[in-house]
Amino acid sequence: MTTPLSDLPFTLAALRDAYASGVTPAEVMTEVLARLEAVRDPAIFIHLASAEDLAAEAAALGAFDPDRPLWGIPFAVKDNIDVAGMPTTAACPDYAYAADSDAFVVARLRAAGAIPVGKTNLDQFATGLVGVRSPYGVPRNALDADIVPGGSSSGSAVVVAHGIVPFALGTDTAGSGRVPAALNGIVGLKPSLGALSASGVVPACRTLDTISIFALTVMDAHDVFRAAAAFDPADAYSRPLPAAPMPAPSPAPRITAPDAASLIFFGDDVQAADFEATLTTLAEGGARIDRVDFKPFYDVAQMLYDGAWIAERYAAIEDMMRDRPDAVHPVTRAIIAKAEGQSAVDAFNGFYRLADLRRACAPILDAADMLCVPTIPRFATCAELEADPVAPNSNLGTYTNFVNLLDLCALAVPTGPRSDSRPGGVTLIAPAGEDAAIAAQGLRLTEARRPMLGATGIETPDLPNPEPAPLSGSEMTLAVCGAHMSGLPLNQELTSRGARFLKTAKTAPNYALYALPGGPPHRPGLCRSEDGNGASIALELWALPKSAVGDFMAGIPSPLVIGNVEIEDGLLVKGFLCETSGLGSAENISALGGWRSYLDGQTALTL
Amino acid sequence: MTTPLSDLPFTLAALRDAYASGVTPAEVMTEVLARLEAVRDPAIFIHLASAEDLAAEAAALGAFDPDRPLWGIPFAVKDNIDVAGMPTTAACPDYAYAADSDAFVVARLRAAGAIPVGKTNLDQFATGLVGVRSPYGVPRNALDADIVPGGSSSGSAVVVAHGIVPFALGTDTAGSGRVPAALNGIVGLKPSLGALSASGVVPACRTLDTISIFALTVMDAHDVFRAAAAFDPADAYSRPLPAAPMPAPSPAPRITAPDAASLIFFGDDVQAADFEATLTTLAEGGARIDRVDFKPFYDVAQMLYDGAWIAERYAAIEDMMRDRPDAVHPVTRAIIAKAEGQSAVDAFNGFYRLADLRRACAPILDAADMLCVPTIPRFATCAELEADPVAPNSNLGTYTNFVNLLDLCALAVPTGPRSDSRPGGVTLIAPAGEDAAIAAQGLRLTEARRPMLGATGIETPDLPNPEPAPLSGSEMTLAVCGAHMSGLPLNQELTSRGARFLKTAKTAPNYALYALPGGPPHRPGLCRSEDGNGASIALELWALPKSAVGDFMAGIPSPLVIGNVEIEDGLLVKGFLCETSGLGSAENISALGGWRSYLDGQTALTL
Repeated sequence: MTTPLSDLPFTLAALRDAYASGVTPAEVMTEVLARLEAVRDPAIFIHLASAEDLAAEAAALGAFDPDRPLWGIPFAVKDNIDVAGMPTTAACPDYAYAADSDAFVVARLRAAGAIPVGKTNLDQFATGLVGVRSPYGVPRNALDADIVPGGSSSGSAVVVAHGIVPFALGTDTAGSGRVPAALNGIVGLKPSLGALSASGVVPACRTLDTISIFALTVMDAHDVFRAAAAFDPADAYSRPLPAAPMPAPSPAPRITAPDAASLIFFGDDVQAADFEATLTTLAEGGARIDRVDFKPFYDVAQMLYDGAWIAERYAAIEDMMRDRPDAVHPVTRAIIAKAEGQSAVDAFNGFYRLADLRRACAPILDAADMLCVPTIPRFATCAELEADPVAPNSNLGTYTNFVNLLDLCALAVPTGPRSDSRPGGVTLIAPAGEDAAIAAQGLRLTEARRPMLGATGIETPDLPNPEPAPLSGSEMTLAVCGAHMSGLPLNQELTSRGARFLKTAKTAPNYALYALPGGPPHRPGLCRSEDGNGASIALELWALPKSAVGDFMAGIPSPLVIGNVEIEDGLLVKGFLCETSGLGSAENISALGGWRSYLDGQTALTL
Repeated sequence: MTTPLSDLPFTLAALRDAYASGVTPAEVMTEVLARLEAVRDPAIFIHLASAEDLAAEAAALGAFDPDRPLWGIPFAVKDNIDVAGMPTTAACPDYAYAADSDAFVVARLRAAGAIPVGKTNLDQFATGLVGVRSPYGVPRNALDADIVPGGSSSGSAVVVAHGIVPFALGTDTAGSGRVPAALNGIVGLKPSLGALSASGVVPACRTLDTISIFALTVMDAHDVFRAAAAFDPADAYSRPLPAAPMPAPSPAPRITAPDAASLIFFGDDVQAADFEATLTTLAEGGARIDRVDFKPFYDVAQMLYDGAWIAERYAAIEDMMRDRPDAVHPVTRAIIAKAEGQSAVDAFNGFYRLADLRRACAPILDAADMLCVPTIPRFATCAELEADPVAPNSNLGTYTNFVNLLDLCALAVPTGPRSDSRPGGVTLIAPAGEDAAIAAQGLRLTEARRPMLGATGIETPDLPNPEPAPLSGSEMTLAVCGAHMSGLPLNQELTSRGARFLKTAKTAPNYALYALPGGPPHRPGLCRSEDGNGASIALELWALPKSAVGDFMAGIPSPLVIGNVEIEDGLLVKGFLCETSGLGSAENISALGGWRSYLDGQTALTL
């Protein structure tokens, strides 16, 4: 290889290339420690593996094994997640215990070839979004020492932002996996609840917690997510959710953002302008942006610390709060102690209110493929936190606190520096199970913006455009040529049934497209021409789960049918066709080449 | 009609026949009141509509309307469910209010043509399984005055068991829709949570409550369920669950029952023998019976009254418990007051334990199509309840208390008298959404056992064999016109995917059939003619599981397609068609009327 190891950006792709060209894991472990030493921040790690132990782990990997997707990849672990042989403190010395086995997710990552290098600092008991509530010191923000590192996963975010390790595990209940990502200019992946097992994790709110992933790139975060995700029967909150390969992004996603009146920036006009600029980027990339009153989501967010869920934090450390309250950080203790006055009746009244609010949020979520929000409303400085340890912390959770209560997944992505050089970023949010879909859009957004990789000074690399995952045996290709295409009125009939976009295509050059009478929705009819002449018609190919085909078919009206469509490369795929007898006086629009061109013309006519 | 109205069994089928033959709703309402009068039990109803009001409601129905599935059907409503113009008491005079609108489900039933005749007695605030905890008296058990009527839906069960109305609404949180059914020898349907809206229902435990249905036959209970079920956006716990038509029962269902060591009968050996006899009946009918240790389910059951959920009952009447506790029945008050010492931390610790227990139950549920348990472990007498108002009540919930906590649906069915003449019965239980599947098995079981209809002295009627079972929501009709027909080479592509034959049919008279070149197998192509002329072509209609459609479609070659085929009665069904462009020089064989005639001719030619 030509790049010296000391100049190598620590992304998975770069490290895999390095390993393929002869670099050894032992060399990489040495480089990890050298980079950490160079940063001179003793508050990042609560516990760090010794150079000897890392060398031994590296040696134990044996020969390069391309079947282990994280072979030789160093990573850091938030210190509320067990790593065998290291202490778990949750940033509370009196709580500390020696972990004798790996957390389920750490074991999965180790099996994939990754090497844990140490346990990172956090807001004690993962309670906080600032990263300053720890007796182990405050990790410095990797980009700007004046602003807080963010929390609770402070050390994990900072160590990735410095490029010391390619990824780190955090946890996320209220935003602990997203807020520090925004503050340090990196990617923060908050998976669907239950996708990553919580076995071996110190609970904050057991019903809302998830392990999260920090990385420099969206692709890396998603790769780690896929390696870590598996159903764990031993964790009662684990769920068998899909951890799908990164699909091609939907070309015209419906993305919903707060409207101007309901956006909250606490006076940070630069953040406001930066958010609008990101929405413009998304729209230019083909997204249909809807703006809505965000009040129902803020109402949910409000419940996380003002409602019954604070009792979960109490339940997690009940013995300490009762017997050794002085061992708990005073700010943390004051927050958690609020649970002492809450009754079981209060808890159920909280659930009823949440159920009502979920119902209020549902139409907004149903009408969108994903939400897009600023990850944080404004930056908080260390000085502000010294003056008031609570309010600036609460403000940071404006756009994160509702996510876990609504069973959504989220991905915080950097969008490049704001006009004042502070890191810009947004979060994409979707219902549980849609982790891969928001990753695909997040990747597209970072491709458009090319933000710096954290504090490394390196621009987001040119990524190979991911080919969509190949069709699986449980899927059927469906060629759509009309209202089922991305962004058009019936596309949801596909996406709601778990279909995923594969690619655009064209028919063989012997088809005809007709604008059928009737509607809305207006629909075209595709027929193979009888004389062998005709046109090449624009299609979208979607992968529809075979189990959903019957239900999908039930809604297809006459004269439309599903048959075999020949695409330009001669392959036959299932797709929409039209009975010739149903064309009647329909207009032949083949010359336009496709339905979108026809719609554009119709729009132009009405302007 | 020949049967005088006074001798008519009040099932939906019998009443529909009576209406079809000229009986009027006014006559039926008069008969309802006469039957009630004859029973001489003033404790059944807390509020009864007047004869004048019922006559007016009957008159308001207008002419017989076969499109309203419950046209002219009288029903009773548990007095914790609102009926416009009647008081709602929840069996607590101090709680009573005048309902100015129907509960969502009552409104649905009224829209289907049913007429509510009054509000039935219950264990106060639906807390109890005995039916004796009411200031409005104790309804007599319809079969045996020594045993309790069962509760909390006491009046609703008794009024159906006497054959006074064909069905009644109850509610079910702990078993209130099943235990009284078992005690009175009738059917008790406990739907999936959220299938029936709780709007207009006095809550017991909001997260666990459902309206339930009592009827004399499984078919009637399921018909009422289908009329009542609909998603209600105003109820935060409503869910869009299927309320499918009764399918044909699985011929070899996997049914799991408690093993001998874990069955609980509190010394009732007759009940033990009766349960084994029912399992034998199920096995003789083709079921594969598995026996398992039932401890995880008992552990869940234990949590309902010993755990945090009692706080939901408190939350429902918080003002009364605080300000007017003396207005609450002393037994009920003592139970609900246990919530006063429970903290929010206790509540969450309860949820964590339930989550663990759900995980312990999951493998058992996953390995079975349904569970079968005794509905009650033994009978409780009124005398026992006077001596101890709590323990015999708790015992009655042995096989019911876990169901709602595990999000299961259940159907209590009578199995005929035990050897000591007391009513035998079991409950079939399955995951949420499987209501129709357990109804189908319940129907088969009552067909095998022919129990008496409650206390009417009438045997379960000979049911018209549904010929064929109507299409269920999980099936798609597929019209086949060629090699997929019965006995032809590709028929196995249907039968191997669980498809079942429905009937023969013909297309509308404007289709053309072509013998396509190629094969074997030789195949025809069906096209709707473009000029409106053509022929009626012979078809077979098959019911194909929707989940198998995608896999089936994968094997369909060009130029065949699946579209909408118009059959002779004007209905559109999915079926095979052919792309016109693929006909080429194919022979038009429409004059033969169908593929079998064509094959016959071909065979004759080769002889």
